[in-house]
This record gives sequence, C-alpha cells and structure tokens, in this order.
Amino acid sequence: MHKNEKIVVCEVGPRDGLQNERVILSIARKVELIELAQDAGAEIIEVGSFVSPTAVPALADTDEVMKRIKRKENVEYRALILNMRGLLRAEEAGLEKVKITVSASRSHSLKNSGRTPEEVVRGLGETVNYAEKKGLVLSGAIATSFGCPFEGRVTLEDVLAIVRAFVDLGITEVSLSDTTGMANPQQVFVYCTEAARRFPQVVWNLHFHNTRGLGFANVYAGMQAGVNRFDASFAGLGGCPFAPGASGNIATEDLLHMCKEMGLKTAYRLDKAIELAKKVRHYVGHDTESFILKAGAIHYEPNSFR
Amino acid sequence: MHKNEKIVVCEVGPRDGLQNERVILSIARKVELIELAQDAGAEIIEVGSFVSPTAVPALADTDEVMKRIKRKENVEYRALILNMRGLLRAEEAGLEKVKITVSASRSHSLKNSGRTPEEVVRGLGETVNYAEKKGLVLSGAIATSFGCPFEGRVTLEDVLAIVRAFVDLGITEVSLSDTTGMANPQQVFVYCTEAARRFPQVVWNLHFHNTRGLGFANVYAGMQAGVNRFDASFAGLGGCPFAPGASGNIATEDLLHMCKEMGLKTAYRLDKAIELAKKVRHYVGHDTESFILKAGAIHYEPNSFR
Repeated sequence: MHKNEKIVVCEVGPRDGLQNERVILSIARKVELIELAQDAGAEIIEVGSFVSPTAVPALADTDEVMKRIKRKENVEYRALILNMRGLLRAEEAGLEKVKITVSASRSHSLKNSGRTPEEVVRGLGETVNYAEKKGLVLSGAIATSFGCPFEGRVTLEDVLAIVRAFVDLGITEVSLSDTTGMANPQQVFVYCTEAARRFPQVVWNLHFHNTRGLGFANVYAGMQAGVNRFDASFAGLGGCPFAPGASGNIATEDLLHMCKEMGLKTAYRLDKAIELAKKVRHYVGHDTESFILKAGAIHYEPNSFR
Repeated sequence: MHKNEKIVVCEVGPRDGLQNERVILSIARKVELIELAQDAGAEIIEVGSFVSPTAVPALADTDEVMKRIKRKENVEYRALILNMRGLLRAEEAGLEKVKITVSASRSHSLKNSGRTPEEVVRGLGETVNYAEKKGLVLSGAIATSFGCPFEGRVTLEDVLAIVRAFVDLGITEVSLSDTTGMANPQQVFVYCTEAARRFPQVVWNLHFHNTRGLGFANVYAGMQAGVNRFDASFAGLGGCPFAPGASGNIATEDLLHMCKEMGLKTAYRLDKAIELAKKVRHYVGHDTESFILKAGAIHYEPNSFR
C-alpha cells in the first residue's frame, strides 16, 4: 500500500450486520440505512440476501428493500445468494449483481446449506449460465476461508480449489471470508499472496471479523499482499447465525479511520459513516463493537509522519 | 517475522494495568498476580512504578510489593520511574532494572511531569551516572511516540531526537509507547524501520493500546519492521490517567494467542495467561477489553497453512 492508494470499503452492514440482530428493522429503516451509506460515498453495498427466510428471517424482505431504494449511479448493489433459487429472487428484485457464497469447510457448508462444498460447486453451472444469459454479474465468496469452528484450520489448498472452480466458471471476483474470526495476519498474507500468484486474473476482496482482535491486523496483512477491497459493517454489527462464537464484522467507521490515518483514500467518508453508525446503534438498541464510536476519531491532520 | 521466531511479551499489567483501576488491589493480590505471571513464563514483568503516590495512588506500594515477591531467576523485574527520586526508591526496593519514561510531547510531558521534554532529557544525566555507579540497568521509554491527544501527531524527528538523547547517555534499550492509542500500522512501520536504521545498536520495544482497534495491526507492523518485544497487560487492563480517551493496553492473552496462531514462539504460556487474566478480571470486578476472554482461544493445531 502506498500513500494515496485507493481502498474500496464494501458496506455489508445491511446484510451481515442486520442478519444476526434480534430486533428486525422495518423496511423503511433498512432503506434509510442503505441510502445513508450510499450518500456517505459507499461504492459497494450488500443490501441483503436471498436465502431461506426461515434460516435468516431478518433479511426475508430484501426484495422489498431493494425495490424501495432510490438507487444512485455508480453504486454497486449486491445481495448474497447460495443457489439458483436465490439468483431468481435477486433478478426479480432488480439486482444486477449477486455474491454467491460457498463454504470452504465441509461441516460449515452442511450446516449452512445442507450440501457438501463439492455439491455446492457442482451446482453452480446452471446458475452461472442463467446469470450470463440475463446479463447479471456473479461474484464468488468463500466462507470460513481461514478456519472453521467445526473443522479447524482450512488449508490454502482447500481454498484455492474453490477459487479454481469459480475461475473455471468465469467468476473472477472472489471474496475470502473469515466468517468466524479465526484468521491471523501471517496466514492472511500467505493465503492472499499465493492466491494472487496462482490467479492473477482475479479481483480479490477480504472479509474479516474481529472476534479475537485481529480484524485490522488481517486487513493490514491483506493490504501488504496487495488487496484493496475490504468488507466492513456499519457500527461493527455482525456475526454468523450458524457459527458459534462469531462476533461482529470489523466496523466500517473503524476501517475508514484506519485508512485515513494511513493516508489511504476511500470514497466512503468517515464523518458520514460515523453518523450512520450512531443511527444504526440507536436502531438496534444496544452498544456495538465499534472502536471509533467509543473512542472518537483522531482529529488532527494525518500523515505528518511521512 | 519467520516461523519459530521468538517474541518477548513484557507483562505490564501490574503497572500500566492496575494504575488506572478504581479498586486498588491489596499488596497480597498484586504479589499473587505477579507471581502467576512469572509462573506462566513471563520473562519481563513491570511490577509497578516509583512516581508520585498522589498522582498514582494505586501503585504507591510498589516498594512493598517488590519486596514480597518470591523472585524467579531469569525474570526481569522492572519499574517505571520519571526521575532520580524514582530511581532511589527503586534501588531501595531491590530492583535491578528501571524504565525511565519521557514524553515525546511537550503538553503531555508538562501534564505528566511538570517539565518540558528538553528539561526531562537534561535531567537524566545525574540519574544515569548514579545507576551506572550502582550497577542498575536503565531502559528508556518514550510516551506518546506516535501521537498525543493534546498536541496531535508526534513527528518521527521528535521521537528520534529523544532516542538520540537516550543513546548519548548510553541507554540502548528503548520502548516506543503509543500511550493513547493513536498509532497506525503504516506509521509504526515507518517509525520503527527508520529508527532501527538510524540506531542499529538499540534493542526496541513497542507498547500499544487498542483504543481505536489498531493495537494488533500495529504489533504486526512492528514485527514487519523487525521488532520482537511487545508490552501487553493481563486481561487488557490499562490506560493513562493523564490522557483523555486512553483505553486498555493490548491484552497479554490476545497477543500470546496472535503469536501462537502466527507460529511465533513465546516463553509466556497462553493457557496460563488466560487463567491469570480471569483472576485479574475477578479482582478488578469488571469486564475488560480482552478478546480471548470473550471469544476463547482457537484450539486446533495452528500453522497448517504453511
């Protein structure tokens, strides 16, 4: 990372953040939060998911949310899907991009989708063909890329096999997700460096949780390996309803603050993200895992250290 | 950092941790915690400080604590001092090593010690001579090395000027302290790399707080710059009574967990550090900023990713 390099912060709060909350927000509030994120400059917003409404009731209304947003040009709206059924719902809701998620871990995959990773990958062909025919863009996400509470460490080869499968299907945007906060920076650097070497055509995205305090160390390690796209969730909401011990995503405002301090540019504005995070905290009705909401941003001009 | 590299984790909980607690622990409990740290394998323990008992009442009994510890061989016990008066008290208490702290920031220094940094540095000569004569080892610490809530960013040149002063006095062990959690990993990498280049004779130590979530990212950046000694506080206690918004030190058990996951060796044992941290949390009577106490350690064998 060099000074002035651009970092893209993908706002996953409406999906990964809200899916785990006890209080289900109204459609109006979800729309409000998404529109605040886009007004704050977010370039990519994960608006929700099209998965089983029984499994994730908080996001059962993603269709309606998506229809009501006053869309902004140059903002990428995407939703998480697991299969063809999800793609059809996403298309129906007017989405032009979806993120199809598979789990790198057999146990986690079984628990999340009822299928083994191989079955999930085999099932993607039809979905990809349909998306291509309809001009919908698919990106790939690999959950539990760095470790799984059921299986333990996920090896680099396991992860790369799934990347290979995505690439073979023509999917060249891939997110490596540390779904339950088990990654460490050395591992992130090794995985990302090797993944980039093996698949230079892929645009990489990283997704970290701060479960064991290493979320931002992992971001920094990813930056060292050349990645410049990171997921984060407003106010630090998040977790995984199917994974024990999973805590919040890294907070958007914390990541933006880190970037600002490091002299890295983001389109997503820190001051507006902080206002958004405060509103999110108010709506969910509890304190969240956001450092900047607690400690406040550093206010002097950064980068005098250069 | 390479696999199997040794990281030294300095336990500063008895000093930086306890100095800021409302509940002042009994001498017996302080001794118990220090002895548990040494039994857990801590090689360096900051047992307390010899500063104004009015300013830091929680550590006014460091003399007595030090006298009651059943010392272990090969453990370095040190205390923080600000001046000659502190050195004399440390000597009286039987300490063989002290850490003399100056602030890189004029305002912070005035608030902490009533003197400008230049006056503090000028005042060190007598102290150093006395220590030399008595065979006491002095290490140097620079508070607010990366930023100060009163002054803003502290420049690299400001920091290096103080290092220069230490080195001129023959002090070749220097700790750069991010007293109020204002450092970022890019800055840490730049400062440490340049400091090591300019002063190759110095043994460096880094001291981070997790105020804005970057404590472990800063550790990782320090490791990238070749530093292998890091302060941490049991259970993540800490802060600075003179600095607004300062939150806890990085937690010992979190740092040990990070090292273990990264395949780096420590003498300080994670399992015992977790037990110690639980006792600390019980004694101070409130939840602390420890990730591992909340989320639990990862239990499978690490480093299968190599």
